[in-house]
Amino acid sequence: MSPTVTGFEVHDIRFPTSEQLDGSDAMNPDPDYSAAYVVIRADDGSEGHGLCFTIGRGNEIAAAAIRALRPAVLRHPAPTTPAALAALHHRLTHDSQLRWLGPEKGVTHMAAGAVINAAWDLAARHAGLPVWEFLARMAPEELVAQVDFRYLTDVLTRDEALAILRAAEPGRAERAARLRAQGYPAYTTSPGWLGYSDEKLVRLAKEAVAGGFGQIKLKVGGDLDDDVRRMRLARAAVGPTVRIAVDANQRWDVADAVRWMTALAPYRPHWIEEPTSPDDILGHAAVRRGQPVKVATGEHVANRVVFKQLLQAGAVDFVQIDAARVAGVNENLAILLLAAKYGVPVCPHAGGVGLCELVQHLAMFDYVAVSGSWEDRVIEYVDHLHEHFTDPAVVTRGRYLAPRAPGFSARLLPESIAAHRFPEGPVWQARRAAEESRGGIAP
Amino acid sequence: MSPTVTGFEVHDIRFPTSEQLDGSDAMNPDPDYSAAYVVIRADDGSEGHGLCFTIGRGNEIAAAAIRALRPAVLRHPAPTTPAALAALHHRLTHDSQLRWLGPEKGVTHMAAGAVINAAWDLAARHAGLPVWEFLARMAPEELVAQVDFRYLTDVLTRDEALAILRAAEPGRAERAARLRAQGYPAYTTSPGWLGYSDEKLVRLAKEAVAGGFGQIKLKVGGDLDDDVRRMRLARAAVGPTVRIAVDANQRWDVADAVRWMTALAPYRPHWIEEPTSPDDILGHAAVRRGQPVKVATGEHVANRVVFKQLLQAGAVDFVQIDAARVAGVNENLAILLLAAKYGVPVCPHAGGVGLCELVQHLAMFDYVAVSGSWEDRVIEYVDHLHEHFTDPAVVTRGRYLAPRAPGFSARLLPESIAAHRFPEGPVWQARRAAEESRGGIAP
Repeated sequence: MSPTVTGFEVHDIRFPTSEQLDGSDAMNPDPDYSAAYVVIRADDGSEGHGLCFTIGRGNEIAAAAIRALRPAVLRHPAPTTPAALAALHHRLTHDSQLRWLGPEKGVTHMAAGAVINAAWDLAARHAGLPVWEFLARMAPEELVAQVDFRYLTDVLTRDEALAILRAAEPGRAERAARLRAQGYPAYTTSPGWLGYSDEKLVRLAKEAVAGGFGQIKLKVGGDLDDDVRRMRLARAAVGPTVRIAVDANQRWDVADAVRWMTALAPYRPHWIEEPTSPDDILGHAAVRRGQPVKVATGEHVANRVVFKQLLQAGAVDFVQIDAARVAGVNENLAILLLAAKYGVPVCPHAGGVGLCELVQHLAMFDYVAVSGSWEDRVIEYVDHLHEHFTDPAVVTRGRYLAPRAPGFSARLLPESIAAHRFPEGPVWQARRAAEESRGGIAP
Repeated sequence: MSPTVTGFEVHDIRFPTSEQLDGSDAMNPDPDYSAAYVVIRADDGSEGHGLCFTIGRGNEIAAAAIRALRPAVLRHPAPTTPAALAALHHRLTHDSQLRWLGPEKGVTHMAAGAVINAAWDLAARHAGLPVWEFLARMAPEELVAQVDFRYLTDVLTRDEALAILRAAEPGRAERAARLRAQGYPAYTTSPGWLGYSDEKLVRLAKEAVAGGFGQIKLKVGGDLDDDVRRMRLARAAVGPTVRIAVDANQRWDVADAVRWMTALAPYRPHWIEEPTSPDDILGHAAVRRGQPVKVATGEHVANRVVFKQLLQAGAVDFVQIDAARVAGVNENLAILLLAAKYGVPVCPHAGGVGLCELVQHLAMFDYVAVSGSWEDRVIEYVDHLHEHFTDPAVVTRGRYLAPRAPGFSARLLPESIAAHRFPEGPVWQARRAAEESRGGIAP
C-alpha cells in the first residue's frame, strides 16, 4: 500500500523585522517577514513542509488560500513518487473554481506553490535526498511530466524540453561532484537596504568582499542623488572588480528607469533589478534598450506565461526565479527550461523567510541537469532569519554549500513556529504589550 | 463635519448555479456563481455596497482579502467627494505589505476593487446620481485625479488623458440625453453555454434575435467538430447579419487558437474572446496575426499594465473590461483612457453576480465622456440572478436602459443575502441535506 495524506496544518507565522529596517527598499519600507506555513503528513510518518513568503499584513489571506487547497491533498496518495507529484501539481492548479481567483497569479497561486513545495519536501525526504539531488536523479521523461506546457508550446514544446534535459544528462555526475566540492556562487544583499546609513553600507560592503563575495547588491529608487552617492561609496568600498547589482523594487516607470540608470551607469552596475512593474514585459524591453545596464527581474513575476514573454521580447538579461511565488518546483522547472532554451542565466531571488533555503536547490538542479552551467549565475543571499530553520542554508566564502540533508531545507524549528504565531504567539503578545504601554497601535 | 466610515461588513454569498449548467464553458464546467460582498456605512447614514465575483470555492479567500482592507476604510472620511475617492483608492492599492501579495493582481486586487466600487456606490448615492452620471458630471481634472498613472506614462500621461477627456466634453449633454432615450447596445451570451444541447442553443439563439439582440455569443473550445456544428447551427438560426462572437475562455495555446478559428472562420465569428492565457500579450498578438477573426480579451486581465501592453502590442481588437476584476472604477477609468488613446472599442464583460449591473455604468460613462462613441461597442448581457438586486440591469429590445436610480445598481436584496450566505444560509443547508440523503458530498 502506498501512503496516504492524513494531515494538513496551516500556520500564520510572522517575524517583527520592521523593528530593524532589515529588508527596507523603495517600495517596502517596513516589512514584517512572514510565512503562511503548511505541513502535510502521511500515514507512514512522512512529512512535508512548505510556505508562502509575505511581508506581514495579509499573511492570513495566504493562510486562507492554503486552507482552500486542503481537499486536493488530504486523503490523496502521499506525493512520494514522480507520478504522484505531477498529479498533485495538476490538482492544485486546475481546480476551475479556484483558478478563477487568479488565474495562476496572486495569493492563490502562491498558496499552490507552498503546498507543491511541501510535497517535494516530503518526496525528497522519503527518498533520503536533498531536493536538488532528488530532481537531478530523475529521468528527463519524469521531469517533463512535472511541467504544465499549457500556454508555452508556441515557445517550448515537451519534445524541446526533453532535448534540453537529455543534452545535459552526460555531465550530471561530474557537475554534482563539483557542486559538492565547491558550492554554488552567491551574492549578498545585506549591505544595501535603503534604511541603512552610508557608514553601515560601506562597512557591510567591505565585510562582504572580505568574506569572499564577488557580488553585492544595493537597493535604489528612493532619491537619485542619494543613490548616486551610495553607488559611488559602494564602488569605492569594494574596488573595481566586485560586481554591484542594483535593485529598484518596481519603483519606476520606463523613462524614470532610463534616466536613473544612465546616471548610475558610470559606476558600472552589474544589473538593474525590477526597474518597473513585474507585469510590464514591453516596459522591461524598453528599459533594456534605453540604457546600458543589463536588466534582471522575476521575484514578482506571476507565472511561466509572463517569464515566457520576458524571454520572447528580449526583455531580460537575467531570470530571477523565486521558489515560492509561482506554483512551486513544477512551475519553476518550466521556467528553468524556458531560460535554458533562450540561453539566459537564472540568478534566483532569495532572502525573506526560507527563500534562500528553498531556491538553492533549484539553482543547483539547474546547474547539474538543465543549463549545465554556473557561468554568470549567482544565488542571492541575505543573512536574516536562518536561525529559525532545522537545515539552514550555509554560505561560506561567497558560496552556497550543497545541502546534504534530505528534503527542501525550509523546515522551521517547532519553537520558532510556537514563538511567532500571529497573533497569539509570545513574540506578538510582547510587542502588543510594548506598543500599548507606549500608547501606540500594534498591527 | 464631513461623514466618517463607521461600519465595514463582509459576507460570503454563493448561488448554486452549477445545478443548471448555467455559465458552463470550456474551462469552467460547474461554477457556483458567488460574491464576496462588502458594505461600508458612514455615520451620516450613507451606505456603499460592492463585491468580488467568484465562481464558488475560494469565495472565502476573497472575503478574507476584503477584511484585510478594513483598516484602510474604517474611521477614515466617507468617500463622498472626488478627493476622498482618490485618496481611498490610493490607500487600498499602495499598502506595501498587502501589495506584496499581488502586486495588483489576483484576490487581493479584486478585493480592493470590491471596496473601491462600494465607495463609488456610496458617493453616487450621496450625490443622488447613478454612477455613470456621477462620473459623467465630473470635470476632466477630477477624473484624471482618480487614475494611478504609475507604469502607464510610457503610453499615457496625465496630460494626454486630460486632453482625451477635454475633447469629449462638448457633446456630453447630448450623448447623455441620447443614452437615456435609446439605451446602450447589448449582446447576449444566454444561448451559448457549452453545457446546453443543440436544440436549446438554436431555440435560445432565435429567441435572442426575436428579442432584438444584434449579437449573440457561443462558448467554444471543448471539441472542434462540436464547435463547427454549433457555429453552423447558430449561423443558420440567426441569419447572415446578426453577429456571433465566440469565446474560448483561455482554453488554447496559440497554435490551437489559429487552427480552431481558421475552421470556424467560414461562419464569420465577430470576435474570438479569450483564445489563450489572459497574461499572454504576445500570444494574443500572434493569434490576431495568424487567423482572420478579430481578437477580444480582458475579463481576466489583471490590471491596467497588462491592458496597456495588449494595446501597445496590437494584440486586441476589443477591450473587455470587467467591473470587479481590477481596482474598481479608478483602474477601469485608466483602462478606458488607454483604449480611447488607441481607438480600440471597449465591449465590457458581464454576467456572473452583479457584473451587468456594475459595468453598464462604465460603458455608459465611456460613451458620454471618454470615447464619445458607441460604434462597434456592446455590453454583454446574461439573464441570470438579476432578481437578487434592488436595481437590476434592464435590457429591452437588445439595449441596456440607462440606470436612473442613484448608485452602482449592484446592491443585493437583504433576503437574497440571508438565503445564500455560505455555508450557513438556508439554500446551502438544504443542498447539504439533499446531498447527504443521496449519500454524496456537498461542497
